[in-house]
Amino acid sequence: MPEQYLYFQNRLRLPMHLRKLKTGNDSFDHIAHGGLPLGRTTLVAGSSGSAKTLFGAQFLAMGIQLYNQPGVFVTFEEQADDIRRNLKSLNWDIDTWEKEGKWIFVDAAPKEENIIAVGDFDLSAFRIRLERAVQKCNAQRVVIDSIGSIFTQFHEEMHTIRRELIQVALTLSRLGATSIITAERLEEYGKITRFGVEEFLTDNVIILRNVLHNEKRRRTIEILKFRGSNHEKGENPFSINPEKAIVIIPLSAMNLKHITSNER
Amino acid sequence: MPEQYLYFQNRLRLPMHLRKLKTGNDSFDHIAHGGLPLGRTTLVAGSSGSAKTLFGAQFLAMGIQLYNQPGVFVTFEEQADDIRRNLKSLNWDIDTWEKEGKWIFVDAAPKEENIIAVGDFDLSAFRIRLERAVQKCNAQRVVIDSIGSIFTQFHEEMHTIRRELIQVALTLSRLGATSIITAERLEEYGKITRFGVEEFLTDNVIILRNVLHNEKRRRTIEILKFRGSNHEKGENPFSINPEKAIVIIPLSAMNLKHITSNER
Amino acid sequence: MPEQYLYFQNRLRLPMHLRKLKTGNDSFDHIAHGGLPLGRTTLVAGSSGSAKTLFGAQFLAMGIQLYNQPGVFVTFEEQADDIRRNLKSLNWDIDTWEKEGKWIFVDAAPKEENIIAVGDFDLSAFRIRLERAVQKCNAQRVVIDSIGSIFTQFHEEMHTIRRELIQVALTLSRLGATSIITAERLEEYGKITRFGVEEFLTDNVIILRNVLHNEKRRRTIEILKFRGSNHEKGENPFSINPEKAIVIIPLSAMNLKHITSNER
Amino acid sequence: MPEQYLYFQNRLRLPMHLRKLKTGNDSFDHIAHGGLPLGRTTLVAGSSGSAKTLFGAQFLAMGIQLYNQPGVFVTFEEQADDIRRNLKSLNWDIDTWEKEGKWIFVDAAPKEENIIAVGDFDLSAFRIRLERAVQKCNAQRVVIDSIGSIFTQFHEEMHTIRRELIQVALTLSRLGATSIITAERLEEYGKITRFGVEEFLTDNVIILRNVLHNEKRRRTIEILKFRGSNHEKGENPFSINPEKAIVIIPLSAMNLKHITSNER
Amino acid sequence: MPEQYLYFQNRLRLPMHLRKLKTGNDSFDHIAHGGLPLGRTTLVAGSSGSAKTLFGAQFLAMGIQLYNQPGVFVTFEEQADDIRRNLKSLNWDIDTWEKEGKWIFVDAAPKEENIIAVGDFDLSAFRIRLERAVQKCNAQRVVIDSIGSIFTQFHEEMHTIRRELIQVALTLSRLGATSIITAERLEEYGKITRFGVEEFLTDNVIILRNVLHNEKRRRTIEILKFRGSNHEKGENPFSINPEKAIVIIPLSAMNLKHITSNER
Amino acid sequence: MPEQYLYFQNRLRLPMHLRKLKTGNDSFDHIAHGGLPLGRTTLVAGSSGSAKTLFGAQFLAMGIQLYNQPGVFVTFEEQADDIRRNLKSLNWDIDTWEKEGKWIFVDAAPKEENIIAVGDFDLSAFRIRLERAVQKCNAQRVVIDSIGSIFTQFHEEMHTIRRELIQVALTLSRLGATSIITAERLEEYGKITRFGVEEFLTDNVIILRNVLHNEKRRRTIEILKFRGSNHEKGENPFSINPEKAIVIIPLSAMNLKHITSNER
Ligand SMILES: Nc1ncnc2c1ncn2[C@@H]1O[C@H](COP(=O)(O)OP(=O)(O)OP(=O)(O)O)[C@@H](O)[C@H]1O
Ligand SMILES: Nc1ncnc2c1ncn2[C@@H]1O[C@H](COP(=O)(O)OP(=O)(O)OP(=O)(O)O)[C@@H](O)[C@H]1O
Ligand SMILES: Nc1ncnc2c1ncn2[C@@H]1O[C@H](COP(=O)(O)OP(=O)(O)OP(=O)(O)O)[C@@H](O)[C@H]1O
Ligand SMILES: Nc1ncnc2c1ncn2[C@@H]1O[C@H](COP(=O)(O)OP(=O)(O)OP(=O)(O)O)[C@@H](O)[C@H]1O
Ligand SMILES: Nc1ncnc2c1ncn2[C@@H]1O[C@H](COP(=O)(O)OP(=O)(O)OP(=O)(O)O)[C@@H](O)[C@H]1O
Ligand SMILES: Nc1ncnc2c1ncn2[C@@H]1O[C@H](COP(=O)(O)OP(=O)(O)OP(=O)(O)O)[C@@H](O)[C@H]1O
Ligand SMILES: [Mg+2]
Ligand SMILES: [Mg+2]
Ligand SMILES: [Mg+2]
Ligand SMILES: [Mg+2]
Ligand SMILES: [Mg+2]
Ligand SMILES: [Mg+2]
Repeated sequence: MPEQYLYFQNRLRLPMHLRKLKTGNDSFDHIAHGGLPLGRTTLVAGSSGSAKTLFGAQFLAMGIQLYNQPGVFVTFEEQADDIRRNLKSLNWDIDTWEKEGKWIFVDAAPKEENIIAVGDFDLSAFRIRLERAVQKCNAQRVVIDSIGSIFTQFHEEMHTIRRELIQVALTLSRLGATSIITAERLEEYGKITRFGVEEFLTDNVIILRNVLHNEKRRRTIEILKFRGSNHEKGENPFSINPEKAIVIIPLSAMNLKHITSNER
Repeated sequence: MPEQYLYFQNRLRLPMHLRKLKTGNDSFDHIAHGGLPLGRTTLVAGSSGSAKTLFGAQFLAMGIQLYNQPGVFVTFEEQADDIRRNLKSLNWDIDTWEKEGKWIFVDAAPKEENIIAVGDFDLSAFRIRLERAVQKCNAQRVVIDSIGSIFTQFHEEMHTIRRELIQVALTLSRLGATSIITAERLEEYGKITRFGVEEFLTDNVIILRNVLHNEKRRRTIEILKFRGSNHEKGENPFSINPEKAIVIIPLSAMNLKHITSNER
Repeated sequence: MPEQYLYFQNRLRLPMHLRKLKTGNDSFDHIAHGGLPLGRTTLVAGSSGSAKTLFGAQFLAMGIQLYNQPGVFVTFEEQADDIRRNLKSLNWDIDTWEKEGKWIFVDAAPKEENIIAVGDFDLSAFRIRLERAVQKCNAQRVVIDSIGSIFTQFHEEMHTIRRELIQVALTLSRLGATSIITAERLEEYGKITRFGVEEFLTDNVIILRNVLHNEKRRRTIEILKFRGSNHEKGENPFSINPEKAIVIIPLSAMNLKHITSNER
Repeated sequence: MPEQYLYFQNRLRLPMHLRKLKTGNDSFDHIAHGGLPLGRTTLVAGSSGSAKTLFGAQFLAMGIQLYNQPGVFVTFEEQADDIRRNLKSLNWDIDTWEKEGKWIFVDAAPKEENIIAVGDFDLSAFRIRLERAVQKCNAQRVVIDSIGSIFTQFHEEMHTIRRELIQVALTLSRLGATSIITAERLEEYGKITRFGVEEFLTDNVIILRNVLHNEKRRRTIEILKFRGSNHEKGENPFSINPEKAIVIIPLSAMNLKHITSNER
Repeated sequence: MPEQYLYFQNRLRLPMHLRKLKTGNDSFDHIAHGGLPLGRTTLVAGSSGSAKTLFGAQFLAMGIQLYNQPGVFVTFEEQADDIRRNLKSLNWDIDTWEKEGKWIFVDAAPKEENIIAVGDFDLSAFRIRLERAVQKCNAQRVVIDSIGSIFTQFHEEMHTIRRELIQVALTLSRLGATSIITAERLEEYGKITRFGVEEFLTDNVIILRNVLHNEKRRRTIEILKFRGSNHEKGENPFSINPEKAIVIIPLSAMNLKHITSNER
Repeated sequence: MPEQYLYFQNRLRLPMHLRKLKTGNDSFDHIAHGGLPLGRTTLVAGSSGSAKTLFGAQFLAMGIQLYNQPGVFVTFEEQADDIRRNLKSLNWDIDTWEKEGKWIFVDAAPKEENIIAVGDFDLSAFRIRLERAVQKCNAQRVVIDSIGSIFTQFHEEMHTIRRELIQVALTLSRLGATSIITAERLEEYGKITRFGVEEFLTDNVIILRNVLHNEKRRRTIEILKFRGSNHEKGENPFSINPEKAIVIIPLSAMNLKHITSNER
């Protein structure tokens, strides 16, 4: 078993049932007790600008940089080209990774010429496209950013949203990759997701917050739910660092020292 | 009468009208004044990640481990396989129990091939399937996890939800098993259930909470309603322990000492 | 005039316009200034598990035990059989009373075989059934538990709910019995009833609360409205006692001593 | 000009543009700077049990007792007979007044036989009936209790409610009587009326509150709006007294002493 | 340029781009930095009884009394006759002004005979009527009280409300008069207007509040928006004075002394 | 590369991935770490009167005054003529700039003659008009004020709003200009935009607030989101100054001194 899967088991000496995939972000892997659940889908919900896209991209980038794991980034909202440019501010050279076949964009963002089609986005065609991309690069990490944009066409009909999200999750599950789906939130402390069903349908839920308090903003990350696994509870502050992207300050930081010294 | 039904009557010397089924979780049986009402259905409502599935699974696992009572687990949301894996983290070897015919899964979770059928989920076909499973293993415990997923197709129409939930409860009642139905909540302190009718239709209601306060989470369990029986009132904190699953800290813990010393 | 009607008039020496029916629960009759308005309908609204059914059943049980007044209990939600069993925990032997013709159940709860009919519940057929039961045992007390379940079929259309509730109340009024109708609430301190019209249509409104405060529950009863009569105002705490059922602690307890010494 | 119109003008020596009608309730006439605006309609809005009916009935009763002014009481909700009985608790013998032709009931409350017609209540037929009653006894005071019950049939359609309420108000205005229309509220401190349009359509608005605070109730009355006239502002506590009905404690009570000594 | 336009420019020596029309209410003209924007429409939003009509009427009355500027008062809600009477309490003799051709009522209030037509109020016919009235008296001030009543017929459809309000504003703009349109609010501190679009469509927004705090009322006026001009910010308390109508207490009252001494 | 693009890169020595366009407003460029993202669209959301139009106009005016960059101002709400006049209060002579071809108005505001067409506003025709204007003056800055007015016709249908806004943003993106789109908000601290989707569709979001606190107003500006770039976080107070328009007081003002001394 490759090094990156052993992290959690070694540290806490737990039996090896639900395996974790080390994201490569040490502080996150710490609060996640090892990383993201391997082969499963994690919902990352956050308000506008809460760093959902960054979190997803960092997951792929670290997979490539640290563990040589190829990844697929599905973008429903931003143009692939914009993401490439935005992520350069974090010193990730996606162009090169794309050329090396380690990073594949599935660019499902609306284009000026075919925008009318968005209204009737065909999710089954999309799933085929996703499947091909995963197989092409043998992707072990997948990010879908963000699911909210395709759901608004379902007129807030919970049942359809439930069905479509399950279908995407089942496809991802069959492909075996460890996945992140981002979802939109409208308030920092209210409903967990826009429609109030997404969180029940996914095995794992992470919340990114960007809270305004006394005219200042404070970013936090919380693992709300990991089915079948323990994890740190409650909110952990984080900052966005141009060199290391998302840096979480685990509130149980005592243990962290030990880990990071091991890791580096 | 088997040992596990006598608990409550002996302790409090009450007349033996509404019998309780010892779940096997001592701290829960304490606050429940003996256990879950025998032969009745209990609604367990909680937000995403509040431990509904864990609570239900522990109910079955303890029935098998402590009292040799077979159980049926109906899963509408998670794949049976995922539940098997998740529960291994709690040292329950469901595979073996399944082979021994003590644990039967009714896997009503959506599958990739037949997901469209979910939209028109046929509850009467489901009830027949449930009935067969109960009869096959002579189940004394049943868990349905979770009812919310089939209700979203009824467009929040209270009347239909009322009718369908009653129908499931009546079937369970006829089968004679002691049952748990889990239900979704969107807020920790607001409406008791998603639709605001489920709690009125069931004899017993338990609420699982996962409250965020000062950026920390705190889990509590509350028995809101036991028709025809007394019980501890208010919220009791609990933690999820990899060895003992849900461990409640009864706030009236003085009495507990006595009980637990008796039990072990 | 039988002893149980004189209570209020004697105590406060008021003219005898609106007569009260002593329920037999002294602490309640105290805060109600004599009892429930004779020949009228009182709405008892409460959240799930707030003791609505208990309150109604105690009203009938005490009528039989203390004043030999027969009663009719209409159950729309729980099976009559479940109610019989639940109430045994309070030492009321309904079976016997039923045999003696003092307690009649109108069991309008949904049955497994005919549940589809619930959706189109025929209220005029129901009223005839109610009328026959009242006449058969010469009922002086009637409980309808709970009206909410038949209203959900009217799609929250206020006008229909208004009309149907008035119709039931008029029938009860013609029959001359003193009646209780229970109704559902979703919050402890918000709208008085589920639809926000029921409270305006009935002469008398009582609210049962089960308030969560600092993780503890506290039960209170409040007489919100007695048209044409004075009453104690505000919330009075109560507990559920296996021997005496609902026991109210009147906040103006000084006066109570006197009364209870008179009564016993 | 009869004595009861002069009250306000004399006391404050204001020019005599908008005349007031002394209700006869001194404490109310004090905070109203003389009484209700003569020949106009005043909306009295309150939650269930807030004393709307009492306020209206007292207005008529005092008109008869103190100034020999006949009145019409339109009841849409309670049976006239119930009102008669309820008001006996306040020592008003409406029967006698009815026989003397001083009090006329327009009983528009639903009856058991014709309740279906309520759904399509014909407001123009009602207005004719109202007109005849006013003319028959030469009514100078009119109470309509309560308008809410006929509005629920308009499906919360603001425009229709607006039109119908205006039409009733215009009829009352043409008849020249000083009128009260009661309206329902759902909360003590929120929207002024159920639909949020009634208050804009009437010249005068009075709010009756029955506020729950620390488990106690407190009744207050507030004159929110008197078009074209001054009045006391804010809430004034009141109690319901079996001998004097609604007794307001004006917070500017200094002035009151003088007035009451004048009046009695 | 007549005296009343020079006020603002002289005081603050600003260039003369957006001209102001002195209303004649000194304290208002102070917080408005000279008066209402000349030739533009100002939205005056307030809850029921917040003094919208008074504010509008005072604007016209002062125009006539102090600057001999004729005005048109469009009334959609109150009968012109009621307004005449109401305003007599403030010593404005509108009758006389009407005879002198200085005050014209466009009485668009519903009448008993033609009330059905209100439902389909024809705004283009109304605009022609308005235009004729303005031209007839050469009106320099216009008040429309209140726009809310005609909008309720559009079923809260934002787009239609937007279009109709713009159309009225454009007509007023072409006529060149300085105008006030009143609009309804339901809460003192929430949405600015009933529909949440009106405030975006008008150049200027003033809010009248009548706040309940500790059972007392407090009136305030706030200039929320003056496009293209400075103004005092925040709420200023005001009272209604039988001799001077609305009297604002500017919180920056130091400067006011100087002004008022200049003016009188 | 012209001087105004170098600002940010020089100061912080970051790699030059996402370029910024100096707006010319030093205090804004400071909190924006250089200016607005070059070639991208920024959403400026604010309540009525929060200075959205001012912010947009200042962006164009400074482009012309300081960097000789032509701009296009699309006005959907106010008449171009009104904007011309309003901005004179800030000493910007738009007339002259228009004559010099540096400022082009696309006047899409409703006109009295053709207002019905607004209801069916044709966005593709509009985009062609916009494109021509941009090309005609070689615009490097574009302001669309405000998008909300055309969205209300889509009946709050999120999907259509999403599609239309994306389409406008894509057109702007192709034209290469740096753009501002203003959007309406209803509350100061609640949903970020009227419909709750606009903020997710744009790369950059700025919020203008006009907060009422203790009866006083306080204006603040916050950069909520800059995809691919750092920026100052949280609210910064600002005032509107007749000579310098919007003047922000950066809370990290220490650094500002250095910058402003460099710049002037
Ligand atoms: N290089 C950087 N340095 C510091 N902060 C950055 C950097 N790049 C981005 N950020 C921060 O990250 C935020 C954007 O994060 P991101 O795009 O991941 O949010 P998001 O949750 O995906 O938002 P949306 O819902 O709009 O897609 C920016 O607003 C900025 O505050
Ligand atoms: N082995 C474990 N050790 C500690 N905590 C665990 C363990 N397994 C699960 N948990 C905790 O239990 C939570 C999941 O509980 P569960 O799946 O029962 O919730 P649920 O209420 O069913 O959620 P959902 O609504 O999503 O189905 C996890 O988020 C995790 O916090
Ligand atoms: N024998 C008993 N001793 C003590 N408490 C009891 C006893 N029997 C019932 N209770 C309490 O009464 C509650 C049930 O009351 P009841 O069934 O009257 O409520 P309800 O308002 O009718 O609820 P629902 O809306 O679900 O019908 C139980 O939850 C329990 O807390
Ligand atoms: N004789 C009395 N002595 C004291 N209080 C009384 C008396 N009669 C009535 N009350 C009080 O007045 C209340 C009823 O007032 P009323 O019927 O006028 O209310 P309402 O606002 O019309 O209610 P609804 O909306 O239900 O019609 C009673 O609930 C009671 O508290
Ligand atoms: N002469 C007066 N002296 C003192 N206060 C007065 C006088 N006339 C009117 N008022 C006050 O003004 C209030 C009415 O103001 P106005 O009619 O302008 O309100 P409005 O905002 O137009 O209300 P609506 O929405 O009902 O039309 C009255 O409720 C009263 O409090
Ligand atoms: N010359 C000036 N001096 C000071 N303040 C001014 C000046 N001009 C405008 N203002 C202020 O700016 C506000 C208007 O700003 P602006 O028109 O940009 O707001 P907006 O957000 O576009 O509003 P809307 O949503 O109504 O279009 C005015 O209400 C005023 O308070
Ligand atoms: Mg994103
Ligand atoms: Mg679960
Ligand atoms: Mg019950
Ligand atoms: Mg009443
Ligand atoms: Mg008015
Ligand atoms: Mg603007």
